[in-house]
Formats: sequence, C-alpha cells, structure tokens
Amino acid sequence: MTMLTRVKSAVTHFMGGMIATGANGDHLSGSDLPLKFPYMRPEFLGLSPDEIECSADHSARPILILKESKRLPWSTGYAEVINAGKSSLNEDQACCEVLTVKPKPPASGGGANRTPTSRRRSSLPNGEGLGLQESLEVCEGLTLHYWGLFDGHAGSGVAVAASRQLHGHIAQHLQEVLDILRLPGQPPPTCMGEEPLNHHYHPHHQHQQQQQHLTATGQRSLSRAASLRGAAGAPGTSGTPPPQTRFFTEKKVSHESLVVGALENAFKDMDVQIEKDKGVYNVSGGCTALAVLYLLGKLYVANAGDSRAVIIRSGEVIAMSTEFTPESERQRLQFLAYMHPHLLGNEFTHLEFARRVQKKEMGKRMLYRDFTMSGWAYKSIEEDDLKFPLIYGEGKKARVLATIGVTRGLGDHDLKVHDSNIYIKPFLSCCPEVKVYPLTLFDHGADDVLVLGTDGLWDVLSNQEVAEAVTGFLANCDPDDQHRYTMAAQDLVMRARGMLKDRSWRISGDRLGSGDDISVYLIPLMYGNTQT
Amino acid sequence: MTMLTRVKSAVTHFMGGMIATGANGDHLSGSDLPLKFPYMRPEFLGLSPDEIECSADHSARPILILKESKRLPWSTGYAEVINAGKSSLNEDQACCEVLTVKPKPPASGGGANRTPTSRRRSSLPNGEGLGLQESLEVCEGLTLHYWGLFDGHAGSGVAVAASRQLHGHIAQHLQEVLDILRLPGQPPPTCMGEEPLNHHYHPHHQHQQQQQHLTATGQRSLSRAASLRGAAGAPGTSGTPPPQTRFFTEKKVSHESLVVGALENAFKDMDVQIEKDKGVYNVSGGCTALAVLYLLGKLYVANAGDSRAVIIRSGEVIAMSTEFTPESERQRLQFLAYMHPHLLGNEFTHLEFARRVQKKEMGKRMLYRDFTMSGWAYKSIEEDDLKFPLIYGEGKKARVLATIGVTRGLGDHDLKVHDSNIYIKPFLSCCPEVKVYPLTLFDHGADDVLVLGTDGLWDVLSNQEVAEAVTGFLANCDPDDQHRYTMAAQDLVMRARGMLKDRSWRISGDRLGSGDDISVYLIPLMYGNTQT
Repeated sequence: MTMLTRVKSAVTHFMGGMIATGANGDHLSGSDLPLKFPYMRPEFLGLSPDEIECSADHSARPILILKESKRLPWSTGYAEVINAGKSSLNEDQACCEVLTVKPKPPASGGGANRTPTSRRRSSLPNGEGLGLQESLEVCEGLTLHYWGLFDGHAGSGVAVAASRQLHGHIAQHLQEVLDILRLPGQPPPTCMGEEPLNHHYHPHHQHQQQQQHLTATGQRSLSRAASLRGAAGAPGTSGTPPPQTRFFTEKKVSHESLVVGALENAFKDMDVQIEKDKGVYNVSGGCTALAVLYLLGKLYVANAGDSRAVIIRSGEVIAMSTEFTPESERQRLQFLAYMHPHLLGNEFTHLEFARRVQKKEMGKRMLYRDFTMSGWAYKSIEEDDLKFPLIYGEGKKARVLATIGVTRGLGDHDLKVHDSNIYIKPFLSCCPEVKVYPLTLFDHGADDVLVLGTDGLWDVLSNQEVAEAVTGFLANCDPDDQHRYTMAAQDLVMRARGMLKDRSWRISGDRLGSGDDISVYLIPLMYGNTQT
Repeated sequence: MTMLTRVKSAVTHFMGGMIATGANGDHLSGSDLPLKFPYMRPEFLGLSPDEIECSADHSARPILILKESKRLPWSTGYAEVINAGKSSLNEDQACCEVLTVKPKPPASGGGANRTPTSRRRSSLPNGEGLGLQESLEVCEGLTLHYWGLFDGHAGSGVAVAASRQLHGHIAQHLQEVLDILRLPGQPPPTCMGEEPLNHHYHPHHQHQQQQQHLTATGQRSLSRAASLRGAAGAPGTSGTPPPQTRFFTEKKVSHESLVVGALENAFKDMDVQIEKDKGVYNVSGGCTALAVLYLLGKLYVANAGDSRAVIIRSGEVIAMSTEFTPESERQRLQFLAYMHPHLLGNEFTHLEFARRVQKKEMGKRMLYRDFTMSGWAYKSIEEDDLKFPLIYGEGKKARVLATIGVTRGLGDHDLKVHDSNIYIKPFLSCCPEVKVYPLTLFDHGADDVLVLGTDGLWDVLSNQEVAEAVTGFLANCDPDDQHRYTMAAQDLVMRARGMLKDRSWRISGDRLGSGDDISVYLIPLMYGNTQT
C-alpha cells in the first residue's frame, strides 16, 4: 500500500494501524459495473479460494510461500504477507511467466492488426513440459522471462489487471521489433515499410532502402518546414533552394534501447487500457509496477513507483531501480503545476515551504523552494502562499495534493482530491525508468540474486540489511536445493513483518515491523548463463 | 562559443572555421542603444586597450596569461586564447573576487531595501593590503572567494555584464541569510520577521517565536484552503473543525542549502537584470555561467551551460558539474514543448527522430523518442512528424529549434528562430546546478586543483587528459612557485588550441585543436585549509 487519502491516513493513525476498512477504496468508482478480473493471489501460488480467505488474517499475518510442488523459472523464490489491517485485501500482486514472442502472422488486410500473438510457453511457468511442436516454435520466436510486482492502493482492481495484462503489452511491443532483435549483428533500420515487421522481413532489402534515403535527400520535398529549417546547421533562408549535396546523419540506436522503448510504451498502453476498461468494468484504484525482463542475455528492470529492485552479487549491493515519490519527483511536479496552474484548482500552491504557512504569518519570511531550486531561500509570505502546498509531508508521509504518496504507476484515473474536483492523475506518470544489467557478462554464483520487493519490505529494512540477511541465509542452505530462494524470501518477509508483541509487530532492534502488504521475489542470477 | 545560428554554422563550415564576421551577433538587438559595459578582457589580466587589440589575432592566437606581477586569491592560475575566427571578439569572460558580505544596515523605513552592501575586500583581488579598519569589518562580515567563467554567444554583451554583475547578486542573496550563516550551530529559522535579517537578529528570540508557532497551530485560521486541506494526513472533511492537538512538522534545512538557494536565486536575478537592461542598453547575446564560491569551508560550484568544473585530487578526477545541452536536457525540453505546443509556432515537432523525416516517407515507420522515453521505438510517420524536430543533431551539433547548442545560461531574451517569430528563451533555463565540495574535510597537496574551463577546452581534451597534463606539469614545477598554476593553465590552453599546421590547428595525435575561445582557471585547493 503506497497511498492513503487524508481520511484513511488519519483513521489509520488514530486506530494504531489495526483496523480493517472493508473493500477499501472500491467505492471510489465503478462499483456498480462488473469486475474485470476477480480478486486473486498470484496464480503461481496455486491457492484455493479457501486458502486465499484464510491467508487474509490481519492478526496472524501468515506468510505465504511458493509450494515445493510449484516451481518458477530459474527456481525463483517468492513470499508474501498481508497488511496489519489497513485494507481487507492484500493489494500487492505478482506475476511470473516464460513467454515466447512469435512473429506476427502476415497481415491479411492492410490495417493495424495488433492482437498479441505472444503466448505462454507451457502450462507451467517454469517452462517444463515443452512438446516437440512448441520447441519448433521457439526456434522461430524469442523467449523471454518476466517477473512483475504490483502494489495497489485505493482498491485492488488495477493491481490485479496489471498483473494479468502488462506482460501481454510488453510482448506486443517486442513483437513489433522481433525480427530486428533476432539479428543482433544488424543495426536497427531507421525507417521501415508501412506494416509492422513480419517474418518476411529481409535485412538486405532494408539496407538498400536506407541507401536510397541517403541519396534521395537532395531532391527532398520543399514543404515549408523542410525548406525553412533544412537539416541541422544548414543555411536556410526561406526561398533559397537547399544545396544538393547534403545527407541526413542517422543516430545509432542499439538493440537494447529498442527493448527499453518497448517496455516504456507497454506501460503506457497498459495505463490506457485501464482507463478504457474503467468505463465498462469495475477496475478500482491504482498500483505501482515493477517489471523485470530477461531477454537475449540482459536483465531489464522497469520501475514505476516505490517498489525496489536490488542485485546482490558477492554480498555487494547494486541498485537496479530508484523510487518515484513526491519528494524524489518534487521538481517535476512543481514544474508541471507552474506550467499548468489550473491543475491546482486554485486550492494549492506549487511552492514548497519548510512547514505549513499560517494566515497570521502574512508578510513574514519563510523558507521555500520553487521548481528550479534544490537549495532553500526565504520569501515573504503572500496571500497565495496560504494555499495548501502541492507537495506536503516528509518521508513516507509525503503526499501530492494531500492525497497520494507515490508519483508513478498505473491507474488512478478517477482519483480526486477529497471533496474537490481536482484530479491527481495529471501529476502521476505511468512511465517507468528502465535499468539494464548485462547478466551474461558476469559469472554468478548460487548466492547472487536479484531481490524485488514492494515498499513494505524496504520501509523497514535497508539494502544492506537485506543483503546481509539473504547472503547469510543462503550460505546455510544446500546450494542444490531449488527451494532455497523461496525459503530466503520467506525469511526476508519475516524480518520485515516481525513478530506480534503486545499487539504490535516488532522486528530486530525492537523496531516497528511493517504493517503494510509485503511481497518479495528472490531471483537467482546464475540461471541466466545456462538458459536462454 | 556554444551557439551558432544555422546561418553562421553553415558559413563557418564552408569557410573552414577561419573567417571573422565582424561584431558578431551584435546586430541582433539594441545596437542603437548605448553599451551597458564596454567590451573588455578579464579585469585581473590588467591589459591595456592596445594589448587587448593585439591579443585578438585570429591567426596567431596568442595565449594570454596572468602577469607575474598580478596575483589572484589562492595563487589561482588563469590562461585564455581567442577563437580561430568565428567571432571577431573573444566571447569568453572571467571574473575573480574576494568579497566581504556585510550585515545590512538597519532599515530606515519599512520597504524592501535591497541594495547590495557587499564590497571588494581590497583593491587587489588577492586580498593583499588589508588595513586595520578593513580587518575589523571582516569580523562583522563573511569573506567569500568567487571565480566566474562565462562563455558568450551571438554577441559579447551578456557575458561581459554577467562577469561584472553576477557576484553582486550572489553577495546580495547571501547577505539576506548572513546572520544565519554566521551561527553554524543554530539551524536556520523556518520563519522570520518581516524585514530581511539585520545584525540585531537574536537567535534566542527566534527560538521563542518558533515555539509559539508550534503551539498556536491549533487555533490557526479557518481559511478555506486550511480548513479543507488541513495538515498532511489530517482528516479534513470540510466543515469539520480541525483537531486541536496537531502541530506542523518542520523540515530540517541546512546552512549549506541556504547557500545553494542563494546561488540559484542569484542566477535568476542576474537573468532578470539582463532582460531589463536590454530595454535601455545594448546588451548583446547570451552566455553560459560557471560560478565557484568558497565559503565557510566549502566550495560551491554552480553551473548553467556547457562549461565544466573538475577537481583533480591525487591525480584522480572528481566531476563538479554536468553540462546542459540539447541532448542532456532533451526530455525537459520535449516535456515543455508537449505541455505548451504554441512555443513551437506550428513549425516544429517535440518528437525526436533517428534522422530527419521526409515527406515521401509518410505512412512508413521511423525510430522516435517522446519525452517519456529513454529508449527508442517505431512510429508511423504522420503529417505532423514532417515538422522540424525541436532537438536536432548529435553531439556538438545538437541544436534546440535549429538555433542554439546550449540549454542553460543567461540572456538570449531576444533570440528567435531565424526568419520566424519563435522565441528560444522559454526553452532555456537560467538555473544552475550546484554541487558542493567540503574542502576542509580533505587534506590537499600543492598539486590538487579545481579546473574550470569553457567548452573550448573540453571539446578536445577529456577529463583524463586534462588530469594527466596538469599532474604532469605541476610535478615539474617548484611547489613554492606561486606562478605554477598559471603556467599549468597556459599549458592546458596550449594543448587544447594546438599548433598551426598547414592552416589548421593541430593537437597531439594529429587531432584537430579547438577553434573556439578557450579559457581556463586552475584553482589550487590547499589554500582553502589555511585561509578563510
């Protein structure tokens, strides 16, 4: 859970964080519409409806782990626990798949035929049970491993939808560049024919096409824009015909950046789909999204929200994501509000102050920051400064428009400031930051892992504490035990949840444990070298 | 020189970079108005008008250095050379001062009395010749060391103005927090009385005032914004009176961040002053600005543009600035254009393409990036994509609106896209990025230096090459020779300019030397420990 309306936050505060508030937030929109997807726990846990109900015990908070009979690709470990009562459901969601992206079938007409043809490689996500037929298909397609982690707020609908659908959007965007990705020796063509690439794509032909562009530019159209602006650095007094000897330089685009672009646009499409679905289904709330892709020897970590991905290699920590919060995105949000002040509905100011300004302080001078500043200065308090600040609160309590504590993610299209007509969505970005880790360039041992966790984990444990816990735990396991990563994930969740002591959850050092939903993946890295 | 209009760029290209174009760019605006400041070389060089004229030899390109009789604070070294002909004047400027910021005299009335009372500490910038009277003043004031480097374009006026005036704005903003900075043990007060602090400021009184705020918040005004929003996380159903037991948390603001804020706002004020002055004076063009402040044991490096600051410590390089160019600021600029498309005047598109789109490619698919993307994807080319891209070109040739190659700095208020009514200024930021180096926390040897250089230096020499050159040169000098830093600066400029060979400037490895203006400061760091 990453967001609290002021109301819920206050209630939680006064009740010691131990109350259940029913189908939390689902009343915010579309509650009369049919559900798009029923509430669920991650499919790979294979829980029965009864088990799901039992697990939602806010007092006992049982830690759910992957059964020994179920295996995820690369022997990935997984564990989760529900919150201490701030919402009746566990609003975290997770998904793990091995997908084969296959060439698009030749288009029958000419229209944009964008049905995803990616499909799961087998009925078991670990890829077992592949028949001959499927193996043959793999030769034509591209295999990718996918792990997704979603942290919902104000309802569970969007997190469930994203866990079911985001990888489909990713596969679709990868399909469009599939034939390029399968030829890593060839640079991606700058320009292609009208149809998305299909499997009749011929790189040689493409090359000829490019050459033609290079030589044809001298005779390019004299549209106003072209003749006025010319190429970079060109003389371009309008009316002067352009010289005939120029050619356009082309930027070198890597295969890697095509995968990054595919991930970025897949998040965008997922968000658009949620918006559309909210018109006809009950898809409640919003969620953060952390998606990991393994493709052609590289790990891609795409993060929109405040979950975190960390690689632990030989006990050392490598950050694979950054969190997007009102504090970390302050300047982007202030800049947007400064550019489009109507988004603040005359109720908020885009300025940040060191504390809330009071009316009686008019004319005094208070510490503030504008969107251009990382330092602080004093300004005389004016009428406008009495408005509530766009960003207010510190640390985990920081909020945008007094409402939401995370600034990137999916959904939230109908979220408004309480008792107002001010929408939050314009300030939220669905765009992930993507970091790339060249997995096969390193030799990884059995204890080298990628840890993915929702903020419930990282709120109470530092990177260093997680690294020490994982390294310590795995060192005591049989290296050949496939279940060791799930046991280590369980250990992490236990360390973050803590034990119930005098009605509160306590972790080591008598610190407060996390009362939030906590979900953790532990992905061993050595499998990247042996599997494709 | 960091900017070329398309016309000038093309001319320079065709003429091999060896032509002089007269009082370059000065015709762009205000040429009938009186000059605000006459053209000059840095004051500390102490050149006569004759010497200035002789130095502007675009063929011989003599390297100017600080005379042995002139000394800068900390024995700072300095050297410069004019360009190879792309503008008749050297558009780089530099300034170095030791300033004492003194308390503001008690205000006589109640108005905002913002005259700068900072003043130079002595007639020699190295601070020599202080009399008793001045020493006493120092006890009351705050001494700061200042180095400024400015790289002008489209005229020399703004660079000259900034070199004369920026430190005044900095001193003015520091003066406003002077009494706070002089009490490093006390945290800056969040709120202060109506007048800027003067020397009658009593921290104890201030403390009481703060306490009062804390206890008084329960009775705060019920203005609509306050009652509706409350404090962070507060329940706030409008109409419900706020609880009486809340207090406002205050953010902890460091002394350091007050200096950062002062620098940020000083750059803004300088830019506003230039805009105002352009109405009544001839202040041509624009400039980048790199300003270094030494204050209370810390170095503050404020950079707006594509100059660079680098610390060399024990031969290791520590970057103290980042460059702001169309490429490094692509997403900020695209976002702005997306938010305010009218700034593109229907002539440009905010999208980036891997190369220029041609009309005949309509309907085909080309690699592009939007403001949300760091990766690339394909999009079908539409009518709007035929417009010239907001950002075009690569590396040193990248331009915003086909006009300017640097995206932060001062001035340029009247700069337009050639033959159009599209202004460039909205896309430029005058706000510096400020990095802080805790100088006195380290022990520095005689060869540890801060290097400041305009892009003329860094275009042809890498950080590593500069570090090796400086370290190698200083190792061969007498450590007690105060002139060694100027000799090393001269060596750097020589290495970047190179030698004239068959009518072109060549540097080591038979590479092309820089045809740009080149200016270099070499600031030894060991003096920070011994002087205040």
